[in-house]
Amino acid sequence: MNILITGGAGFLGARLARTILQKGELCGQAIQSLTLTDLFPAPADLLADPRVRSHAGPMLEQGDVFASGFDGVFHLASAVSGECEQDFDLGLRSNLDSTRVLLDGLRHAGNAPRMVFASSVAVYGPDASNPLPDLVGDDTLPSPQTSYGTHKLMLEYLVADYTRKGYIDGRAARLMTVTVRPGKPNGAASSFFSGIIREPLAGVESICPVDASVSHPVSSPGNTVHGLITVFEASREAMGGRLALNLPGLNVKVSDMLQALQDVAGVAVRDRVRFERNEQVAGIVNNWSRGSTAVRANGLGLRPDASFHAVIEQYIEDCKTRPGYPADALKGLAP
Amino acid sequence: MNILITGGAGFLGARLARTILQKGELCGQAIQSLTLTDLFPAPADLLADPRVRSHAGPMLEQGDVFASGFDGVFHLASAVSGECEQDFDLGLRSNLDSTRVLLDGLRHAGNAPRMVFASSVAVYGPDASNPLPDLVGDDTLPSPQTSYGTHKLMLEYLVADYTRKGYIDGRAARLMTVTVRPGKPNGAASSFFSGIIREPLAGVESICPVDASVSHPVSSPGNTVHGLITVFEASREAMGGRLALNLPGLNVKVSDMLQALQDVAGVAVRDRVRFERNEQVAGIVNNWSRGSTAVRANGLGLRPDASFHAVIEQYIEDCKTRPGYPADALKGLAP
Repeated sequence: MNILITGGAGFLGARLARTILQKGELCGQAIQSLTLTDLFPAPADLLADPRVRSHAGPMLEQGDVFASGFDGVFHLASAVSGECEQDFDLGLRSNLDSTRVLLDGLRHAGNAPRMVFASSVAVYGPDASNPLPDLVGDDTLPSPQTSYGTHKLMLEYLVADYTRKGYIDGRAARLMTVTVRPGKPNGAASSFFSGIIREPLAGVESICPVDASVSHPVSSPGNTVHGLITVFEASREAMGGRLALNLPGLNVKVSDMLQALQDVAGVAVRDRVRFERNEQVAGIVNNWSRGSTAVRANGLGLRPDASFHAVIEQYIEDCKTRPGYPADALKGLAP
Repeated sequence: MNILITGGAGFLGARLARTILQKGELCGQAIQSLTLTDLFPAPADLLADPRVRSHAGPMLEQGDVFASGFDGVFHLASAVSGECEQDFDLGLRSNLDSTRVLLDGLRHAGNAPRMVFASSVAVYGPDASNPLPDLVGDDTLPSPQTSYGTHKLMLEYLVADYTRKGYIDGRAARLMTVTVRPGKPNGAASSFFSGIIREPLAGVESICPVDASVSHPVSSPGNTVHGLITVFEASREAMGGRLALNLPGLNVKVSDMLQALQDVAGVAVRDRVRFERNEQVAGIVNNWSRGSTAVRANGLGLRPDASFHAVIEQYIEDCKTRPGYPADALKGLAP
């Protein structure tokens, strides 16, 4: 199998790449090549694998790469929510236009490759005529409240139409908020969901911009990657249609997250989180899902993370063993 | 007010233009100019009005026109369902790309014009995970089964996002199948919904490609134009959110339509319709809504046509009095 991951140099894309390389196959077929496209070159450990090819540059310029005959594609590349809010044109270009180039490349290759499109829980939101339910599900009518969520939703439907026409075998999976992300805060309004765990573990103070009562569906990086691979490997029948499905989320309150941090890492670590309301972030988060269900993904055998304790423990383990996690990531943890 | 109608030389666009010119105002403000863009020049009666300007050519090339500072826009231009199924690239270009040029023109004009986007009941359809309800409503989860329906749905959400950002004051209204259309059959799979009335009245045989039991939500041209204008004039509060709303449809079976034709025009006219199943058309129609509700449009005071008899009577009256209806349109009607 010749596999493509867009956004393959990013945190999630690189983790997906490592998991696929280690697994060695998809759908029972050996991985011959794994191509990673991103704005940046892939991490060194991935480039060292003889199966890996890396193309750095804007997707808009990589139509020829996309048309080169992949058997399977994971489309993760995207401008994130904060970026799209700040630069409307960048969002349109990086999300809509770039995905059009990808889809047409795959279509023109002519081999109807299987494709997983990473959509997002950000497609959901409240509208005056459409209040947000307590839990958003596969059958909830989306009404995105950001350009990012709008683009993801539009592309879900475009992927479904390319699939209907037989140009690709596409599947759209809505990712829950992935936490704990390593590294620096990014442009996403959801960045603090990682920051309030990551920074205290590194010995750094962290500000939580929303109330402790805020609830949200989250998923660990490991569980998210497992979800993407499971959706890729599922038969068309098991997918149950062309509409997007939710990947499972663990529905947690900020207070639960901090309690888990205290349980796993101690009160001194937890006390590095300070609440300082940021009206802009709180306003955005107020329009987000408080929790989710994932009936169709459950049917594929997918489950949320067992607990937020397990999510934090995965992060600590990752810091100790995985590439891409800084050496001082656990500096705040008592030895 | 300076108004733009895209698709303004088409059947519905020209009727909308005539109605607006006759009304003389929108939202209580006099119409200073009415610009009609389309692939073709506007009909002669419209060009004769000193308020009318016509620009013929592809929307993709009319960015400067769109950016010239309109106060209100009706965006009707679209490739229809049959065309999009036959030519996938034409659909993407005529619907997605062209609307992007329009939206960015309006955005760059900087005056946040009010805009009605003509979406379609074609956004609805059955998916393996999402069966079609008996009646599709504002809150039904769409799953389009054509590229046309896919593009319309994608654009509804894009219009909502431009509106959220304050670039336009957009509203998306889902048109039901408009019948009776004058003239020749067009590329739409729904074309027979007009043909089985129009052809017999003109003394021509007509083939109905689906079962008499097929039910569908329809709307007369007059009621559809009234709906578009009402949605344009509604306050943002009355609209009740940024999600698209259904315009009212009259839910009728083909058998009801033919009974009404017999009642209004006589049995000889009705007998010019012959049933000859076309598997391709029947297959498409099988994925269509059997009926609709329009709760939010009802809240704006909009109602379906009173009966299909009234729809036919409107067509006969139009043939006698309106431009764009051929002289022999009622040749089959007993004098």
